[in-house]
Amino acid sequence: MDHSQLFKKIVKKRSFLCVGLDSEIDKIPTFLLKEKDPVFEFNKQIIDSTYRFTVAYKPNVAFYECNGLKGWKSLESTLNYIKKNHPDILVIADAKRGDIGNTSKMYARAFFENMNFDAITVSPYLGEDSITPFLSYSNKWVILLALTSNKGADDFQYHDEDGIRLFERVLTVSQKWGSIDNLMFVVGATRAEMLKEIRQIIPDHFLLVPGVGAQGGSLREVAKYGLNSKCGLLVNSSRGIIFADNSENFAKVAGEKAAEIQREMERYLSERNLI
Amino acid sequence: MDHSQLFKKIVKKRSFLCVGLDSEIDKIPTFLLKEKDPVFEFNKQIIDSTYRFTVAYKPNVAFYECNGLKGWKSLESTLNYIKKNHPDILVIADAKRGDIGNTSKMYARAFFENMNFDAITVSPYLGEDSITPFLSYSNKWVILLALTSNKGADDFQYHDEDGIRLFERVLTVSQKWGSIDNLMFVVGATRAEMLKEIRQIIPDHFLLVPGVGAQGGSLREVAKYGLNSKCGLLVNSSRGIIFADNSENFAKVAGEKAAEIQREMERYLSERNLI
Repeated sequence: MDHSQLFKKIVKKRSFLCVGLDSEIDKIPTFLLKEKDPVFEFNKQIIDSTYRFTVAYKPNVAFYECNGLKGWKSLESTLNYIKKNHPDILVIADAKRGDIGNTSKMYARAFFENMNFDAITVSPYLGEDSITPFLSYSNKWVILLALTSNKGADDFQYHDEDGIRLFERVLTVSQKWGSIDNLMFVVGATRAEMLKEIRQIIPDHFLLVPGVGAQGGSLREVAKYGLNSKCGLLVNSSRGIIFADNSENFAKVAGEKAAEIQREMERYLSERNLI
Repeated sequence: MDHSQLFKKIVKKRSFLCVGLDSEIDKIPTFLLKEKDPVFEFNKQIIDSTYRFTVAYKPNVAFYECNGLKGWKSLESTLNYIKKNHPDILVIADAKRGDIGNTSKMYARAFFENMNFDAITVSPYLGEDSITPFLSYSNKWVILLALTSNKGADDFQYHDEDGIRLFERVLTVSQKWGSIDNLMFVVGATRAEMLKEIRQIIPDHFLLVPGVGAQGGSLREVAKYGLNSKCGLLVNSSRGIIFADNSENFAKVAGEKAAEIQREMERYLSERNLI
């Protein structure tokens, strides 16, 4: 799926929502714990009730990895379920990987060959040769961390050299490694006002924006500063959707929450004449 | 294992060698492929022939993750084998993880609870709250990336603000998050001369130094600039040891290579009157 195909899906679904599958076993409804694979069963029901409103799913790999082999099985089952039933939906491994070249190559193999993810989040600290192994696959995306939504983003990402902060340098330097068809950037929604500056550096790239909802980011602000002529945004919500309800109705409520966000997104897309 | 216990082990073994278990399935001797778990069988034999010369093992998680569930089983079997037979040896998960706080907590659970690693390598890009969840465990180590051994290190790690480069800022800021008993730093051996400057910022911390051997770093240079009064170094060699031979003798040759490095290390420890 390239840049223009992704935009077409957004237009079709009138949504640029990414549902984050941060499916922590301690937080899913307890009645699911009797299932053989509770996390997969949870995801399955969440997917069944949200897929109409979303263009992407983003399992957060840590929440699977922490359960060991069982967790990796849940992750694989979830990925395969989406691929089989909703092949038009982008599936992002939120893995924040990144290592020297020969090692990144192995991570790329893990997520793009052994598993069939469409995209992976990658940390930029080790520079170009840690990223390019992921970019060598056709029809796959690297989503590079630029500006994150947490407090710790202040520690290094704002580190300033002659007026150029580290996250700006990451954007400027790394955009040369790929194209708008295989490279996106993570920009936290809690810094929505920064999107204006970021759009000056990368007007055309897709941005994956976490932090809306539980982390306090505003969708209106993100849309205002981040939308471009091909949408250019995937806005993620995790806890605000998947853990909105903890009863037997959890999936229905998750679907309602996703629908609510989709309607808001439709409004913004419409205001910009993108749909 | 704290700072002084680690030093005691180094003195006892007259070695500060870490053997990197970058056990790529395509590179292990082909006659092992008939085994039920070839990667584990390879590691087992490597461990049996190198444990006398090493104070740490460092499986590179990517080389297991790329084999899916089977890979994670090989990793767990390897870890358990070392823990059972050589409980005095530090086992480092070279995982380069790091995410926002609630997610890093899950990665810490994966490597320190679900698996029983003694240490994990972590990327600093997301700042303090991405690191502290790992530091909340007693008797566990965070090994934070500072200056890596690859070409891409130039892209961001040397980014300079008023004369302070990013890797220096990482060292200066992050040393406050932990202590010399639970925090080490990765400094690539291909930049051995930088160790002099780095020792000005962190005179006492242990440094994990990859890049000796296949990547071209010099052990003599690393020892010259990096050793402190409690050794303060773990020098990793992976390919130079584990893939030194590809025949039925592979383990024996790996043991000889490890012994060779140990003898060189013993010389440097002795020259500094550390043993």
